[in-house]
Amino acid sequence: MNSFTFYNPTQLVFGKDSIEKLPQMIAQFTEGKKILMTYGGGSMKKSGLHDRIMNLLTDFEVTEFGGIEPNPRLETVKRAVQVVKENDIDFILAVGGGSVIDGTKLISAASTSDHDPWDIVTRKAIPESAVPFGTILTISATGSEMNAGSVITNWETNEKLGWGSPLVFPKFSLLNPEILYTLPENQTVNGIVDSMSHLLEQYFNEAENSAIGDAMIAGVMKQIMAAGKVALKEPQNYEARETLMLGATVALNGFMRMGYNGDWATHNLEHAVSAVHDIAHGAGLAILFPAWMKYVSEKQPARFAQFAEDVFDADSSLSEEEKIQTGIKGIEDYWTSIGAPSRLSDFNISEEDFETFAEKTLFNGPFGNFCKLDREDVLAIYQLAQ
Amino acid sequence: MNSFTFYNPTQLVFGKDSIEKLPQMIAQFTEGKKILMTYGGGSMKKSGLHDRIMNLLTDFEVTEFGGIEPNPRLETVKRAVQVVKENDIDFILAVGGGSVIDGTKLISAASTSDHDPWDIVTRKAIPESAVPFGTILTISATGSEMNAGSVITNWETNEKLGWGSPLVFPKFSLLNPEILYTLPENQTVNGIVDSMSHLLEQYFNEAENSAIGDAMIAGVMKQIMAAGKVALKEPQNYEARETLMLGATVALNGFMRMGYNGDWATHNLEHAVSAVHDIAHGAGLAILFPAWMKYVSEKQPARFAQFAEDVFDADSSLSEEEKIQTGIKGIEDYWTSIGAPSRLSDFNISEEDFETFAEKTLFNGPFGNFCKLDREDVLAIYQLAQ
Repeated sequence: MNSFTFYNPTQLVFGKDSIEKLPQMIAQFTEGKKILMTYGGGSMKKSGLHDRIMNLLTDFEVTEFGGIEPNPRLETVKRAVQVVKENDIDFILAVGGGSVIDGTKLISAASTSDHDPWDIVTRKAIPESAVPFGTILTISATGSEMNAGSVITNWETNEKLGWGSPLVFPKFSLLNPEILYTLPENQTVNGIVDSMSHLLEQYFNEAENSAIGDAMIAGVMKQIMAAGKVALKEPQNYEARETLMLGATVALNGFMRMGYNGDWATHNLEHAVSAVHDIAHGAGLAILFPAWMKYVSEKQPARFAQFAEDVFDADSSLSEEEKIQTGIKGIEDYWTSIGAPSRLSDFNISEEDFETFAEKTLFNGPFGNFCKLDREDVLAIYQLAQ
Repeated sequence: MNSFTFYNPTQLVFGKDSIEKLPQMIAQFTEGKKILMTYGGGSMKKSGLHDRIMNLLTDFEVTEFGGIEPNPRLETVKRAVQVVKENDIDFILAVGGGSVIDGTKLISAASTSDHDPWDIVTRKAIPESAVPFGTILTISATGSEMNAGSVITNWETNEKLGWGSPLVFPKFSLLNPEILYTLPENQTVNGIVDSMSHLLEQYFNEAENSAIGDAMIAGVMKQIMAAGKVALKEPQNYEARETLMLGATVALNGFMRMGYNGDWATHNLEHAVSAVHDIAHGAGLAILFPAWMKYVSEKQPARFAQFAEDVFDADSSLSEEEKIQTGIKGIEDYWTSIGAPSRLSDFNISEEDFETFAEKTLFNGPFGNFCKLDREDVLAIYQLAQ
């Protein structure tokens, strides 16, 4: 492993009764009463969650900021920062999935600063403080509820960039698996793909020895795959939903990534696509991961053979090439079995865009910690995903 | 799973360069300069670690408190509390293994209070503050470096009791696997047994669904078993040492235990033995776990069959009884292969003590969250370990 510091102070509150703990959780972090509640569309009003939360917050003065979109946008964050500053907000409550939470992270860090929020994303400005915030998770996928990372899209520049700061760990996240019962099927699918992709990015890492991480990743991946099939067949299966929900959180809260960074090239490949086309992150990853695996397994076969043994129980007597195919086919077949997309062309994305995508991914030069990709590699991978 | 809150704010700093970060780590938590350094015997002076630490702390005023013994004792803690109070200590640095750290946790909590430290252990007094402390880990076993639990022995009353408080999470723990190179072989063995036992206690738990935990536990257990054999053969194998060191930490830092408590009966059975006989915790666990498994598997066979599949790859076509035997034999054979003890009689512990042990274990009535044990059960298990 590489040297590392693991630190994650988020309080993860999990279970059927988690949301009821909201007032006492907020009270740990502020004596103030001014809350900004951030959220996305209207689904939480329809589901009754909005009323439930407002009933818990009767002792507080709640300002609402809805409309944080999938792939949260810089201009939306800027408007919210205005609201925080004008209302002297003491605490932010993000109610939603990864997009709402990612957006809220930037709202939190930018609201105590005079910098343009985009300067924080591009690291021109380093946040020195942040408005404390907590979350109620309504879509399980990105793991944003228990990490300090965030991805923001700037439609002026067609850029989608990740940033992070230890100041933007959620103070707490309240997770009730029952909330997922009414999730549209495609969001359940995207969530499974997203959490699986986080595990794949970390499994293919740059460390000499990642024995503990390998074991945890392979185990969690198998459980997510099994629970995912059950949840799609029986959306109200509590055990399947809790496995998916906890699985997605641990997939990206740092537990697995002690001693290495992981590859993260496929995320970069995907961000370039969804910076130009409004495609769900999970859908983009489902398409691009098998393509990345096919291409990179020819350059670094050994790790892909081990992957097949660890995750798909490939028989150790198979040849390296047979193992590699077992692993890639394992992922492809699983995606197909849950109805995830497999081709860029399914989204009317054509080869004409590939140069633009490649340019975006190579903004900081060749990338990928497990396997460094240059322009030629990138174009070949998009081709395999076409 | 049961409802749970996971919270662990310890900064885990891992790698060959971790100890050099000591001054900057302390500076995060105090502007004061008065450090109490707690440790056990003289091994850290012999190894040069003492000099290395003192060279890093030239800006601080260091008071030393050595002599914290294995199974740390109440009277030792009391003497240290005196030293903290008399010297207005700002920060405590624990250098050692689980015993030094467990002792330091009680020193930390008792030093800001007028209560007798034993009242904190017995929950007559609830700590409201604590002197901040960090650790440099020199023996990898108990996981105390990244949790808020502690076990203290009171030789006046022959009691060995566990307690905990969120106030006594170490602020940071510095882990350099190279430190383990010179560990006596029996301490490496006890460390392996101890971390494996923590995983076993959690695997056999009371939850309906512990899919994510099961997967992580089984995976980490396999890696510890493999790395343990390597480290015993090649004490200076860095990768084996880092797997064992990180494995022991994650085995009891709460990562695995999200959604359940685990059984913990075997720890109670062991504490009763080592409250009377001065036997290493790991040695006691090695003896008692197979006995507990043999006895309890007759009452709750299904989980033991799953254990054998998860950890020892028992073929799914075997009968339940064959699987169970595979799992128990797997643990017994592994203990034997690393030279762990297997019988109470090897330590001159005789049947005459069993009534005393049983009385101690049943202090709060029947115990064990996976399988509740009463007097008859307890005596039968000690008999199986004889």
